[in-house]
Formats: sequence, structure tokens, C-alpha cells
Amino acid sequence: MGDPAGIGPELCLQAIQAPAILDKCIPVVFGDSSVLKIVASACSIKAKFKSISMSEWNNNPSISEAVVVDCGTIDGTQVEPGQIQKSCGRVSYKYIKTAAKAAIDGRIIGMATAPIHKEALRLAGIVLPGHTEILAELTGTKTFCMMMASDLINVSLATIHVGYAEVPGLISTQRIIRVIGLTAHALRHLGIRSPRITVCGLNPHSGENGLFGNEEQNIIEPAVADAQLNGLNVEGPTSPDTAFMPAIREKTDAYVAMYHDQGLIPFKMLAFDKGVNVSLGLPIVRTSVDHGTAFDIAWQGKASPLSMIESILWALRLAGM
Amino acid sequence: MGDPAGIGPELCLQAIQAPAILDKCIPVVFGDSSVLKIVASACSIKAKFKSISMSEWNNNPSISEAVVVDCGTIDGTQVEPGQIQKSCGRVSYKYIKTAAKAAIDGRIIGMATAPIHKEALRLAGIVLPGHTEILAELTGTKTFCMMMASDLINVSLATIHVGYAEVPGLISTQRIIRVIGLTAHALRHLGIRSPRITVCGLNPHSGENGLFGNEEQNIIEPAVADAQLNGLNVEGPTSPDTAFMPAIREKTDAYVAMYHDQGLIPFKMLAFDKGVNVSLGLPIVRTSVDHGTAFDIAWQGKASPLSMIESILWALRLAGM
Repeated sequence: MGDPAGIGPELCLQAIQAPAILDKCIPVVFGDSSVLKIVASACSIKAKFKSISMSEWNNNPSISEAVVVDCGTIDGTQVEPGQIQKSCGRVSYKYIKTAAKAAIDGRIIGMATAPIHKEALRLAGIVLPGHTEILAELTGTKTFCMMMASDLINVSLATIHVGYAEVPGLISTQRIIRVIGLTAHALRHLGIRSPRITVCGLNPHSGENGLFGNEEQNIIEPAVADAQLNGLNVEGPTSPDTAFMPAIREKTDAYVAMYHDQGLIPFKMLAFDKGVNVSLGLPIVRTSVDHGTAFDIAWQGKASPLSMIESILWALRLAGM
Repeated sequence: MGDPAGIGPELCLQAIQAPAILDKCIPVVFGDSSVLKIVASACSIKAKFKSISMSEWNNNPSISEAVVVDCGTIDGTQVEPGQIQKSCGRVSYKYIKTAAKAAIDGRIIGMATAPIHKEALRLAGIVLPGHTEILAELTGTKTFCMMMASDLINVSLATIHVGYAEVPGLISTQRIIRVIGLTAHALRHLGIRSPRITVCGLNPHSGENGLFGNEEQNIIEPAVADAQLNGLNVEGPTSPDTAFMPAIREKTDAYVAMYHDQGLIPFKMLAFDKGVNVSLGLPIVRTSVDHGTAFDIAWQGKASPLSMIESILWALRLAGM
């Protein structure tokens, strides 16, 4: 359900009644029923769901329609929509933990997460920066990465939520080799037999033969060469400014970008509100919306559920359904 | 004419017979007739032009049709297409210098430059990295910047051809204030009375309140505040990944990007081969194609003249014609 004070609750309410979803699975929301009821009324959403308590859920009931597993952790009347609240950070974490356990136990086929708020999490004492890192810790995963997925463009990121200046110190040949490998693996799961991967350079014009930086020669080229030796269909390092032009995009199943905005600027331009965030390398299927909590419009019924719905559909696809 | 061994000569030959150009001005090419004749034949381009020598040009002749000012510096049969050559670097510089003098003297309304090759220039002992820096030196300009212009998107750059890692040390409040000011000035020249400018952050999510870097608070926000105090219609720092999405793009006349790829990735995605590079801050009008010498296809008649034609049309527009 994500942060109760954000747009997560209304997105869940809309997603669990979307025909595209109900045709393919039985949705299970990990959240709080009292919040969902208040939000449904505030947003005039008529959503039908069955609420079950944690103790009922723990008894492994058979599920035949959309349910909300009522984590019972927060009273909806205490939530201030659009505000950073410690209590909301705490319960966001509880929802993730409960859902992750259900996925690890094989009771759900995967997770599609609604947005959480990093500062609310931090107030609640959780220092991990996001879902992916939390799930990596919960599942004991050391190597993982994020791929932004959509029908038009897929982008995996070698570094994600770090300051611009930290990137050169964080990219390494080993890291890029792993990101290429995880990306190829995910694309094969999606039915692409020999995925074509374009690896971006770090510097303008990929350094123009060392004139503007040498990370291409020292770090990225060896990673591309290694992946090619492993039989992967990989090109790069490609000049970042031309990499996303149509001629190259048409020949690319997924990009490996060196840093957040190198990948997210083109991705958001093309995928608008239909993008999905996929965690690669975890032992469970996990997707997420590609937007934040949107506190400025929370509980107003204005948020588009498209990315939430897409992220559930991508989770199903990645699970082979 | 740019580097004789690149696609510059064929672009000039095509541009000087384009009806869109001839309708509005008399084109003057600063180059070498012997190169142009060989390229015209190699590319099967039938271009009609009158060639005049440097000494004729220096006598200030009256011009009534397309002319080539024959700088007389290189023999076309000595030029190897697609090769980095010291002699080509030397004459590229001569063309620029001759054209710049004509612009400063008011004999031409502005310059639209064909691509030069940095390494050829370097071989010829010219260490300045590009046209803009050369023209800044020739005109004694200290503060200048580059704007990429097109019908769909305009982007000015706070830093350009430097390595990724150097950017944080190069952006300053003063620099950004100047780039905003130069951009607003140029847009007014193009007829936009109160241009709306979006200034990008440097870090993912513009630093997310300091979580991923603090250049936004320390450097960019003060620049935006200063520009706003000066009555400019400026927004920012805007999260780079959302800044170029349609909702914000529709409200933006020009962006100020912090670094090359932040601006050039979205620009090239949208403007393809119709983008133009505009030098702001110089005392003369100067535009340029947004691509390189394309040595791999030089003298083959394959290069698209669209960006060359657009850059001439933009020069006319910036000159108020």
C-alpha cells in the first residue's frame, strides 16, 4: 500500500478493481483497511474488497477474491494526508516486510509496491533508502539492480539514488558486468532470447578518446568486452547523447545507464506514467510504480493508477503468467 | 565550410541552393573552391556558385548571388576524406577567422558553422576545444554559453565539453545566473517577450532535500532566486528526470542544464537532425549544426543537410530577419 499519507492507498483501491488485473490474478493488498476506507470515501472510489486480519492471514486462508491483509498498524483517522509522519514510515516498512515474507513463502507470486517516503522511513529509524535495498536485506541479496521497464524502453541502472558527484567512485567493471548480466537474465524471462543491450558511456561523447574523462577505457569497455566474451549481445560504451535517439533505440532491448538521470530522463520522456520499476537479482519478483508519494495530490482522487496497474501486469509477466 | 575532410563541404553545397535559404538571404561560404568542386563531383551535387578570391573579397565587392570566398589555403586533391589532417585543422581555423572578421565588420549578418574536428585543430596547434571558444577569443568575449535550439525544445548548458567528474567543480551561482540571463536575452530576440526558463538540478530528484547532494541548495537555488529578483520567469531547480516530461516541457521556452548529457539526451531525442547550436554572449550571431564531421560518411553524399539549413535559418531569425 506504500505510505498511507501518499497516493498509494487510492492507487491500490483502483488497481484491485481494474479488469486487466482481475482477469489474470487475485490481488492481495498489504495495508490498513481503516486507511483504505477513509481514502475510498475521500476520493469517491467504490472498491469492493474483503479485509482479513494478520492472524487470519497467518492461518493461511484460501483466497478467492481481492483481499486487504489488514496489518492493523495505524488508525486512518490519525493519518494526515500529504504529511511526512513517523508512524507512516513505520507502517510502510511493516507492509513491505509482511508482503516480502508472503512472497518468499510462495503465498503470492510477487510484489508490486506503491510509493513510500524516504524521510518518513528515516523518522521511523529505517535508514535504507528504498524498497529495493529493504528487500535485498530481507532476502539476504548482495547483488541487485533496478531496471525501469516499459513497452517502449527498458533501462537498468549501474548506480541509483546517490549524488551526482559520487557516481564516478561507485561504478566499477565488476558492477557493470553484473548489471549487464542481471538485465540479460530478466529480458530472457520476458521472452527475448538474445537480448540486445546498449551500455552508455559516462562522459560526453563517451570521453571522446580520453579528451573528457577516461572511465570509458578504464571501466566500461572492459565490462562490455567481458559480457561479449560471455556471448551476450552487448554494444558500448555508446555516447550518451546519441544512445537514446530512435536509430539506436530500435536496435536496443535494454540500456545499461551509468547513473540515475542518464537513464531516467529518456525513460520518463518516453514512458510517461506507464513506467515500471523492476528489482533484478532478488529471489522474488518485485515491481514498483515509477513515481513518488505525490503528497501534493494525496487522497484527492487525482492520481493516475496507470503505473500501479502496469507494475502489477509486469510482475505477472516476470512470474511467467 | 568546416573541416574539408568531413561532411561540411557537401552540406554547404546543398545549403546554398536550398530554396528556404535563397528566399531569405545571399549565402556566403568561407572555404576552398577546389575542395567544393571535387566534393560536388564525388557526391553528384549540382551547385551553382561564384568563387571569389581573398583579395577580391578584401576589396568589398557587391554580392548578388551565392558566393564562395576562396580562402585559397588548401588544394582539394591533397585532402583525404574522413582522415584527421593537420592541414585541414589549419584551414578550418582560417575559415572561422575570416568569417568572424566579416561578421564583426558587419559584412555578413551572422555565421552558421559546419563541423570542425577537434583533433585536427589540435594537430594544427589550436588548443581551443571548439568554435564557440575560438569565436570568444576572436571577439574578446569572456562570458558566453551554448544553447541548443529547435522548434520543440531549447536547452542552454552551464557546462559543456568536460568530463562527468569535473562538472560539480565548474558550476557556480554566478555562472548559472549568466547562463539564465544570456538565455532570456536570446529568447527575447526570437520574439518571446517573457520567456519561461526551467533550471535543472544537478542531482537525482534535485538532491531530495540534501539526501543525494547539496549543489541545489548551495549553488542552483541562489541563482534561480537572483534571476527571479531580476524579474525573469524562472523555475527550478527542477528534478532532472521529470523536467523534460511533456507537462513541464509545454510550459518551458528554454531549459538551463547543468551538464552536456543532461541537456543533450533530451534534445537529441526530440530534435533528431534538426537541432541547431547557438552561441550566446558573442557580439556576433553564430549558429552551428548539432552534429560532428561524420568522417565515416564524408564525401559520399549521404549526410543530411537539414541541420545545416536549420542553422542558417536560425541565424537569420536571431539577426531579426
